[in-house]
Amino acid sequence: MDNIRIIEIKESIFADNDKEAERIRERLKKERTFLLNVMSSPGSGKTCTLLRTIDALKEDLRIGVMEADIDSSVDAETIAETGVKSIQLHTGGMCHLDAGMTEQGLNELGTEDLDLAILENVGNLVCPAEFDTGAVKNVMILSVPEGHDKPLKYPLIFTVCNALIINKIDVLPYFDFDMEKVIEYAHMRNPKLEIFPISAKTGEGIEAWTTWLKEQVDTWNK
Amino acid sequence: MDNIRIIEIKESIFADNDKEAERIRERLKKERTFLLNVMSSPGSGKTCTLLRTIDALKEDLRIGVMEADIDSSVDAETIAETGVKSIQLHTGGMCHLDAGMTEQGLNELGTEDLDLAILENVGNLVCPAEFDTGAVKNVMILSVPEGHDKPLKYPLIFTVCNALIINKIDVLPYFDFDMEKVIEYAHMRNPKLEIFPISAKTGEGIEAWTTWLKEQVDTWNK
Repeated sequence: MDNIRIIEIKESIFADNDKEAERIRERLKKERTFLLNVMSSPGSGKTCTLLRTIDALKEDLRIGVMEADIDSSVDAETIAETGVKSIQLHTGGMCHLDAGMTEQGLNELGTEDLDLAILENVGNLVCPAEFDTGAVKNVMILSVPEGHDKPLKYPLIFTVCNALIINKIDVLPYFDFDMEKVIEYAHMRNPKLEIFPISAKTGEGIEAWTTWLKEQVDTWNK
Repeated sequence: MDNIRIIEIKESIFADNDKEAERIRERLKKERTFLLNVMSSPGSGKTCTLLRTIDALKEDLRIGVMEADIDSSVDAETIAETGVKSIQLHTGGMCHLDAGMTEQGLNELGTEDLDLAILENVGNLVCPAEFDTGAVKNVMILSVPEGHDKPLKYPLIFTVCNALIINKIDVLPYFDFDMEKVIEYAHMRNPKLEIFPISAKTGEGIEAWTTWLKEQVDTWNK
Protein backbone atom coordinates (compact mmCIF):
# COMPACT_ATOMS: atom_id res chain seq x y z
CA MET A 1 0.00 0.00 0.00
CA ASP A 2 1.24 3.45 -0.86
CA ASN A 3 -0.06 5.16 2.26
CA ILE A 4 2.12 3.27 4.74
CA ARG A 5 5.15 5.16 5.96
CA ILE A 6 7.95 2.83 6.95
CA ILE A 7 10.46 4.24 9.42
CA GLU A 8 13.81 2.52 10.01
CA ILE A 9 14.49 3.20 13.69
CA LYS A 10 17.98 3.01 15.13
CA GLU A 11 19.20 1.68 18.42
CA SER A 12 19.01 4.36 21.06
CA ILE A 13 22.01 6.54 21.83
CA PHE A 14 20.85 7.25 25.36
CA ALA A 15 22.82 5.65 28.16
CA ASP A 16 20.06 6.06 30.69
CA ASN A 17 16.88 4.58 29.23
CA ASP A 18 14.78 5.25 32.34
CA LYS A 19 15.56 8.97 32.28
CA GLU A 20 14.74 9.16 28.59
CA ALA A 21 11.45 7.35 29.23
CA GLU A 22 10.57 9.86 31.96
CA ARG A 23 11.32 12.73 29.55
CA ILE A 24 8.92 11.18 27.00
CA ARG A 25 6.16 10.93 29.60
CA GLU A 26 6.65 14.59 30.60
CA ARG A 27 6.34 15.62 26.95
CA LEU A 28 3.22 13.47 26.45
CA LYS A 29 1.66 14.87 29.64
CA LYS A 30 2.10 18.42 28.27
CA GLU A 31 0.68 17.40 24.90
CA ARG A 32 -2.22 15.55 26.55
CA THR A 33 -1.35 12.38 24.67
CA PHE A 34 -1.56 8.96 26.30
CA LEU A 35 0.95 6.33 25.11
CA LEU A 36 -0.02 2.67 25.43
CA ASN A 37 2.67 0.00 24.96
CA VAL A 38 1.25 -3.33 23.80
CA MET A 39 3.42 -6.43 24.25
CA SER A 40 2.87 -10.13 23.57
CA SER A 41 4.25 -13.26 21.92
CA PRO A 42 4.12 -13.48 18.14
CA GLY A 43 0.64 -14.47 17.03
CA SER A 44 -1.31 -13.71 20.19
CA GLY A 45 -3.61 -11.33 18.32
CA LYS A 46 -2.15 -7.86 18.98
CA THR A 47 -3.29 -6.40 15.67
CA CYS A 48 -6.79 -7.93 15.86
CA THR A 49 -7.18 -6.63 19.41
CA LEU A 50 -6.09 -3.17 18.26
CA LEU A 51 -8.67 -3.23 15.45
CA ARG A 52 -11.42 -3.89 18.02
CA THR A 53 -9.99 -1.25 20.37
CA ILE A 54 -9.84 1.37 17.62
CA ASP A 55 -13.36 0.51 16.53
CA ALA A 56 -14.68 0.99 20.08
CA LEU A 57 -12.81 4.25 20.80
CA LYS A 58 -12.29 6.11 17.54
CA GLU A 59 -15.43 8.22 17.89
CA ASP A 60 -14.25 9.51 21.28
CA LEU A 61 -10.48 9.65 20.89
CA ARG A 62 -8.01 10.72 18.19
CA ILE A 63 -5.84 7.62 17.84
CA GLY A 64 -2.48 6.94 16.19
CA VAL A 65 -0.70 3.60 15.93
CA MET A 66 2.98 2.64 15.62
CA GLU A 67 3.47 -0.92 14.42
CA ALA A 68 6.94 -2.16 15.34
CA ASP A 69 8.24 -5.15 13.43
CA ILE A 70 11.57 -6.57 12.47
CA ASP A 71 10.35 -6.78 8.91
CA SER A 72 7.16 -6.50 6.81
CA SER A 73 4.43 -3.89 7.01
CA VAL A 74 1.36 -6.11 6.96
CA ASP A 75 0.15 -4.90 10.37
CA ALA A 76 0.40 -1.18 9.57
CA GLU A 77 -1.54 -1.78 6.36
CA THR A 78 -4.31 -3.52 8.31
CA ILE A 79 -4.47 -0.71 10.87
CA ALA A 80 -4.47 1.99 8.15
CA GLU A 81 -7.69 0.51 6.79
CA THR A 82 -9.50 1.68 9.95
CA GLY A 83 -8.72 5.28 8.99
CA VAL A 84 -6.53 6.11 12.00
CA LYS A 85 -3.01 7.44 11.61
CA SER A 86 -0.62 4.49 11.30
CA ILE A 87 3.10 4.09 10.72
CA GLN A 88 5.36 1.06 10.50
CA LEU A 89 8.58 1.00 12.53
CA HIS A 90 11.28 -1.37 11.33
CA THR A 91 13.69 -2.28 14.09
CA GLY A 92 16.40 -3.70 11.84
CA GLY A 93 16.54 -6.99 13.71
CA MET A 94 16.22 -5.52 17.21
CA CYS A 95 14.05 -7.60 19.51
CA HIS A 96 12.53 -4.74 21.50
CA LEU A 97 11.98 -0.99 21.55
CA ASP A 98 13.61 1.29 24.08
CA ALA A 99 12.64 4.86 24.94
CA GLY A 100 14.85 6.46 22.29
CA MET A 101 13.48 4.24 19.54
CA THR A 102 9.93 4.94 20.71
CA GLU A 103 10.61 8.66 20.58
CA GLN A 104 11.77 8.38 16.95
CA GLY A 105 8.44 6.72 16.24
CA LEU A 106 6.43 9.35 18.15
CA ASN A 107 8.17 12.14 16.22
CA GLU A 108 7.33 10.52 12.90
CA LEU A 109 3.75 9.78 13.95
CA GLY A 110 3.17 13.30 15.26
CA THR A 111 1.47 13.31 18.66
CA GLU A 112 0.24 16.92 19.11
CA ASP A 113 -3.21 16.13 17.71
CA LEU A 114 -3.56 12.67 19.27
CA ASP A 115 -5.35 11.64 22.47
CA LEU A 116 -4.08 8.08 22.32
CA ALA A 117 -0.88 6.80 20.72
CA ILE A 118 -0.46 3.04 20.64
CA LEU A 119 2.85 1.23 20.25
CA GLU A 120 2.56 -2.35 19.07
CA ASN A 121 5.89 -3.68 20.29
CA VAL A 122 7.89 -6.53 18.67
CA GLY A 123 6.30 -9.94 19.33
CA ASN A 124 8.44 -11.19 22.21
CA LEU A 125 7.69 -11.94 25.88
CA VAL A 126 11.24 -11.40 27.07
CA CYS A 127 13.22 -8.39 25.85
CA PRO A 128 10.48 -5.72 25.47
CA ALA A 129 9.66 -6.14 29.17
CA GLU A 130 13.15 -4.94 30.11
CA PHE A 131 12.86 -1.50 28.51
CA ASP A 132 10.66 1.38 29.65
CA THR A 133 9.42 2.89 26.36
CA GLY A 134 8.00 6.03 27.96
CA ALA A 135 4.48 4.61 27.80
CA VAL A 136 1.92 5.76 30.37
CA LYS A 137 0.61 2.21 30.71
CA ASN A 138 1.79 -1.22 29.54
CA VAL A 139 -0.56 -3.97 28.48
CA MET A 140 0.27 -7.51 27.48
CA ILE A 141 -1.79 -9.97 25.53
CA LEU A 142 -1.64 -13.67 26.33
CA SER A 143 -3.70 -15.94 24.10
CA VAL A 144 -5.42 -19.12 25.23
CA PRO A 145 -3.40 -21.46 22.94
CA GLU A 146 -0.16 -20.31 24.61
CA GLY A 147 -1.16 -21.95 27.89
CA HIS A 148 -1.85 -20.84 31.44
CA ASP A 149 1.70 -21.45 32.70
CA LYS A 150 3.23 -18.37 31.06
CA PRO A 151 3.37 -16.19 34.22
CA LEU A 152 5.60 -18.90 35.73
CA LYS A 153 8.00 -18.88 32.78
CA TYR A 154 8.09 -15.21 31.77
CA PRO A 155 7.76 -13.40 35.11
CA LEU A 156 9.06 -9.92 34.23
CA ILE A 157 6.49 -8.99 31.60
CA PHE A 158 3.64 -9.77 34.01
CA THR A 159 5.35 -7.62 36.65
CA VAL A 160 5.79 -4.51 34.46
CA CYS A 161 2.32 -4.54 32.90
CA ASN A 162 -0.74 -2.70 34.20
CA ALA A 163 -3.22 -4.85 32.31
CA LEU A 164 -3.32 -8.38 30.95
CA ILE A 165 -5.63 -9.20 28.06
CA ILE A 166 -6.37 -12.92 27.73
CA ASN A 167 -7.28 -13.27 24.06
CA LYS A 168 -8.89 -16.04 21.97
CA ILE A 169 -11.35 -17.15 24.67
CA ASP A 170 -13.56 -18.34 21.79
CA VAL A 171 -11.26 -21.39 21.46
CA LEU A 172 -11.24 -22.24 25.18
CA PRO A 173 -13.16 -25.50 24.55
CA TYR A 174 -10.32 -26.82 22.36
CA PHE A 175 -7.39 -26.16 24.71
CA ASP A 176 -6.36 -27.28 28.20
CA PHE A 177 -6.30 -23.72 29.50
CA ASP A 178 -7.17 -23.10 33.15
CA MET A 179 -8.50 -19.53 33.50
CA GLU A 180 -8.46 -19.63 37.31
CA LYS A 181 -4.85 -20.75 37.35
CA VAL A 182 -3.61 -18.12 34.91
CA ILE A 183 -5.29 -15.41 37.00
CA GLU A 184 -3.75 -16.85 40.17
CA TYR A 185 -0.25 -17.06 38.61
CA ALA A 186 -0.51 -13.59 37.05
CA HIS A 187 -1.61 -12.01 40.34
CA MET A 188 1.23 -13.84 42.07
CA ARG A 189 3.61 -11.85 39.83
CA ASN A 190 1.62 -8.63 40.08
CA PRO A 191 -1.32 -8.30 42.49
CA LYS A 192 -2.45 -5.03 40.86
CA LEU A 193 -2.70 -6.45 37.33
CA GLU A 194 -6.08 -5.75 35.68
CA ILE A 195 -7.21 -8.81 33.73
CA PHE A 196 -9.52 -8.78 30.71
CA PRO A 197 -10.53 -12.07 29.05
CA ILE A 198 -11.57 -11.27 25.46
CA SER A 199 -12.08 -12.67 22.02
CA ALA A 200 -10.83 -10.20 19.41
CA LYS A 201 -12.51 -12.48 16.86
CA THR A 202 -16.05 -12.37 18.29
CA GLY A 203 -15.79 -9.10 20.24
CA GLU A 204 -16.57 -10.73 23.60
CA GLY A 205 -15.04 -8.84 26.54
CA ILE A 206 -13.87 -5.89 24.42
CA GLU A 207 -16.17 -3.41 26.20
CA ALA A 208 -14.66 -4.00 29.65
CA TRP A 209 -11.14 -3.58 28.21
CA THR A 210 -11.88 -0.43 26.23
CA THR A 211 -13.83 1.11 29.13
CA TRP A 212 -10.78 0.65 31.36
CA LEU A 213 -8.46 2.04 28.67
CA LYS A 214 -10.70 5.07 28.08
CA GLU A 215 -10.63 5.83 31.83
CA GLN A 216 -6.83 5.68 31.85
CA VAL A 217 -6.61 8.01 28.85
CA ASP A 218 -9.11 10.49 30.33
CA THR A 219 -7.30 10.56 33.68
CA TRP A 220 -3.92 11.23 32.02
CA ASN A 221 -5.15 13.79 29.51
CA LYS A 222 -7.35 15.92 31.74
CA MET B 1 10.59 -32.58 42.27
CA ASP B 2 13.89 -33.59 43.84
CA ASN B 3 15.41 -35.14 40.73
CA ILE B 4 15.56 -31.96 38.65
CA ARG B 5 18.96 -30.35 38.53
CA ILE B 6 18.73 -26.62 37.97
CA ILE B 7 21.81 -24.99 36.46
CA GLU B 8 22.26 -21.21 36.50
CA ILE B 9 24.09 -20.51 33.26
CA LYS B 10 26.06 -17.33 32.75
CA GLU B 11 26.43 -15.14 29.71
CA SER B 12 29.20 -16.42 27.52
CA ILE B 13 32.74 -15.09 27.87
CA PHE B 14 33.64 -15.93 24.28
CA ALA B 15 34.03 -13.04 21.88
CA ASP B 16 33.60 -15.19 18.81
CA ASN B 17 30.39 -17.17 19.21
CA ASP B 18 30.67 -18.84 15.80
CA LYS B 19 34.10 -20.26 16.56
CA GLU B 20 32.92 -21.54 19.92
CA ALA B 21 29.91 -23.16 18.22
CA GLU B 22 32.23 -24.91 15.73
CA ARG B 23 34.34 -26.19 18.63
CA ILE B 24 31.21 -27.68 20.23
CA ARG B 25 30.25 -29.44 17.00
CA GLU B 26 33.76 -30.92 16.70
CA ARG B 27 33.51 -32.25 20.26
CA LEU B 28 30.03 -33.69 19.63
CA LYS B 29 31.20 -35.33 16.39
CA LYS B 30 33.98 -37.11 18.31
CA GLU B 31 31.57 -38.18 21.02
CA ARG B 32 28.99 -39.29 18.44
CA THR B 33 26.34 -37.09 20.01
CA PHE B 34 23.85 -35.13 17.92
CA LEU B 35 22.67 -31.80 19.33
CA LEU B 36 19.25 -30.51 18.27
CA ASN B 37 18.31 -26.90 19.03
CA VAL B 38 14.55 -26.37 19.33
CA MET B 39 13.24 -22.82 19.01
CA SER B 40 9.74 -21.32 19.01
CA SER B 41 7.45 -18.69 20.49
CA PRO B 42 6.22 -19.19 24.03
CA GLY B 43 3.35 -21.66 24.08
CA SER B 44 3.79 -23.25 20.66
CA GLY B 45 4.10 -26.69 22.20
CA LYS B 46 7.86 -27.32 22.43
CA THR B 47 7.64 -29.52 25.50
CA CYS B 48 4.64 -31.53 24.21
CA THR B 49 6.42 -32.07 20.89
CA LEU B 50 9.52 -33.26 22.75
CA LEU B 51 7.45 -35.73 24.77
CA ARG B 52 6.15 -37.28 21.52
CA THR B 53 9.65 -37.23 20.01
CA ILE B 54 11.17 -38.94 23.04
CA ASP B 55 8.39 -41.51 23.08
CA ALA B 56 9.03 -42.37 19.41
CA LEU B 57 12.83 -42.55 19.65
CA LYS B 58 13.78 -43.59 23.18
CA GLU B 59 13.99 -47.29 22.32
CA ASP B 60 16.54 -46.57 19.56
CA LEU B 61 18.48 -43.59 20.92
CA ARG B 62 19.93 -42.55 24.26
CA ILE B 63 18.41 -39.10 24.73
CA GLY B 64 19.14 -36.18 27.08
CA VAL B 65 17.23 -32.90 27.30
CA MET B 66 18.25 -29.40 28.41
CA GLU B 67 15.27 -27.18 29.18
CA ALA B 68 16.25 -23.52 29.02
CA ASP B 69 13.98 -21.09 30.78
CA ILE B 70 14.26 -17.70 32.34
CA ASP B 71 12.54 -19.05 35.40
CA SER B 72 10.62 -22.12 36.63
CA SER B 73 11.43 -25.78 36.11
CA VAL B 74 8.01 -27.08 35.06
CA ASP B 75 9.27 -28.28 31.66
CA ALA B 76 12.24 -30.23 32.99
CA GLU B 77 9.94 -31.94 35.49
CA THR B 78 7.60 -32.97 32.67
CA ILE B 79 10.48 -34.32 30.59
CA ALA B 80 12.00 -36.17 33.57
CA GLU B 81 8.80 -38.21 33.85
CA THR B 82 9.64 -39.89 30.52
CA GLY B 83 12.74 -41.38 32.15
CA VAL B 84 15.31 -39.62 29.93
CA LYS B 85 18.10 -37.52 31.38
CA SER B 86 16.82 -33.97 31.87
CA ILE B 87 18.25 -30.77 33.32
CA GLN B 88 16.87 -27.28 33.69
CA LEU B 89 18.96 -24.32 32.57
CA HIS B 90 18.09 -20.95 34.07
CA THR B 91 19.28 -18.08 31.92
CA GLY B 92 18.93 -15.38 34.57
CA GLY B 93 16.75 -13.20 32.37
CA MET B 94 18.69 -13.80 29.14
CA CYS B 95 16.47 -14.09 26.08
CA HIS B 96 18.56 -16.65 24.20
CA LEU B 97 21.37 -19.18 24.52
CA ASP B 98 24.72 -18.75 22.83
CA ALA B 99 27.38 -21.40 22.27
CA GLY B 100 29.14 -20.83 25.59
CA MET B 101 25.91 -21.12 27.55
CA THR B 102 24.98 -24.25 25.63
CA GLU B 103 28.35 -25.79 26.45
CA GLN B 104 27.78 -25.17 30.17
CA GLY B 105 24.54 -27.09 29.77
CA LEU B 106 26.16 -29.93 27.80
CA ASN B 107 28.84 -30.31 30.47
CA GLU B 108 26.23 -30.57 33.21
CA LEU B 109 24.06 -32.94 31.20
CA GLY B 110 26.99 -35.19 30.29
CA THR B 111 27.00 -36.13 26.62
CA GLU B 112 29.43 -39.08 26.39
CA ASP B 113 26.68 -41.66 26.73
CA LEU B 114 24.07 -39.82 24.66
CA ASP B 115 23.13 -40.28 20.99
CA LEU B 116 20.82 -37.27 20.96
CA ALA B 117 21.00 -34.16 23.13
CA ILE B 118 18.11 -31.74 22.79
CA LEU B 119 18.21 -28.07 23.75
CA GLU B 120 14.81 -26.50 24.30
CA ASN B 121 15.73 -22.86 23.80
CA VAL B 122 14.01 -19.87 25.47
CA GLY B 123 10.56 -19.18 23.97
CA ASN B 124 11.36 -16.33 21.58
CA LEU B 125 11.30 -16.05 17.77
CA VAL B 126 13.86 -13.25 17.60
CA CYS B 127 17.03 -13.48 19.70
CA PRO B 128 17.73 -17.25 19.74
CA ALA B 129 17.89 -17.17 15.93
CA GLU B 130 20.90 -14.84 16.09
CA PHE B 131 23.18 -17.21 18.02
CA ASP B 132 24.70 -20.46 16.79
CA THR B 133 24.46 -22.76 19.82
CA GLY B 134 26.72 -25.43 18.36
CA ALA B 135 23.74 -27.56 17.42
CA VAL B 136 24.04 -29.94 14.46
CA LYS B 137 20.53 -29.00 13.32
CA ASN B 138 18.03 -26.31 14.26
CA VAL B 139 14.30 -26.87 14.30
CA MET B 140 11.56 -24.35 14.97
CA ILE B 141 7.98 -24.95 15.97
CA LEU B 142 5.23 -22.67 14.72
CA SER B 143 1.75 -23.42 16.00
CA VAL B 144 -1.46 -22.92 14.04
CA PRO B 145 -2.93 -20.28 16.41
CA GLU B 146 0.10 -18.03 15.81
CA GLY B 147 -0.92 -17.47 12.19
CA HIS B 148 0.55 -18.18 8.77
CA ASP B 149 2.19 -14.74 8.38
CA LYS B 150 5.07 -15.41 10.79
CA PRO B 151 7.74 -16.09 8.08
CA LEU B 152 7.04 -12.54 6.85
CA LYS B 153 7.52 -10.99 10.28
CA TYR B 154 10.32 -13.08 11.77
CA PRO B 155 12.50 -13.90 8.75
CA LEU B 156 15.79 -14.87 10.40
CA ILE B 157 14.57 -17.85 12.39
CA PHE B 158 13.10 -19.43 9.24
CA THR B 159 16.42 -18.86 7.48
CA VAL B 160 18.63 -20.50 10.11
CA CYS B 161 16.42 -23.55 10.71
CA ASN B 162 16.72 -26.92 8.94
CA ALA B 163 13.20 -28.02 9.82
CA LEU B 164 9.90 -26.34 10.61
CA ILE B 165 7.32 -28.18 12.67
CA ILE B 166 3.81 -26.78 12.28
CA ASN B 167 2.10 -27.84 15.50
CA LYS B 168 -1.53 -27.91 16.69
CA ILE B 169 -2.99 -28.96 13.34
CA ASP B 170 -5.85 -30.52 15.35
CA VAL B 171 -7.25 -26.99 15.84
CA LEU B 172 -6.99 -25.98 12.15
CA PRO B 173 -10.81 -25.83 11.82
CA TYR B 174 -11.01 -23.08 14.46
CA PHE B 175 -8.37 -20.71 13.05
CA ASP B 176 -7.87 -18.76 9.83
CA PHE B 177 -4.60 -20.51 9.09
CA ASP B 178 -3.58 -21.08 5.48
CA MET B 179 -1.24 -24.09 5.30
CA GLU B 180 -0.32 -23.47 1.65
CA LYS B 181 0.59 -19.86 2.37
CA VAL B 182 2.76 -20.66 5.39
CA ILE B 183 4.68 -23.23 3.34
CA GLU B 184 5.09 -20.74 0.50
CA TYR B 185 6.29 -17.96 2.85
CA ALA B 186 8.62 -20.30 4.75
CA HIS B 187 10.20 -21.63 1.54
CA MET B 188 10.58 -18.05 0.34
CA ARG B 189 12.85 -17.51 3.39
CA ASN B 190 14.56 -20.88 3.08
CA PRO B 191 13.94 -23.16 0.09
CA LYS B 192 15.65 -26.11 1.82
CA LEU B 193 13.44 -26.02 4.93
CA GLU B 194 11.88 -29.40 5.74
CA ILE B 195 8.28 -28.91 6.90
CA PHE B 196 6.36 -31.25 9.19
CA PRO B 197 2.72 -30.49 10.08
CA ILE B 198 1.93 -32.28 13.34
CA SER B 199 -0.38 -32.42 16.31
CA ALA B 200 1.62 -33.11 19.45
CA LYS B 201 -1.74 -33.57 21.16
CA THR B 202 -3.11 -36.35 18.91
CA GLY B 203 0.21 -37.68 17.56
CA GLU B 204 -0.66 -36.96 13.93
CA GLY B 205 2.40 -36.34 11.76
CA ILE B 206 4.90 -37.31 14.50
CA GLU B 207 6.21 -40.31 12.57
CA ALA B 208 7.37 -38.26 9.56
CA TRP B 209 9.15 -35.81 11.88
CA THR B 210 10.86 -38.45 14.04
CA THR B 211 11.87 -40.50 10.97
CA TRP B 212 13.61 -37.43 9.57
CA LEU B 213 15.26 -36.66 12.92
CA LYS B 214 16.45 -40.26 13.34
CA GLU B 215 18.06 -40.11 9.89
CA GLN B 216 19.89 -36.90 10.80
CA VAL B 217 21.14 -38.42 14.07
CA ASP B 218 22.27 -41.64 12.36
CA THR B 219 24.11 -39.74 9.62
CA TRP B 220 25.96 -37.57 12.16
CA ASN B 221 26.81 -40.34 14.63
CA LYS B 222 28.00 -43.01 12.19
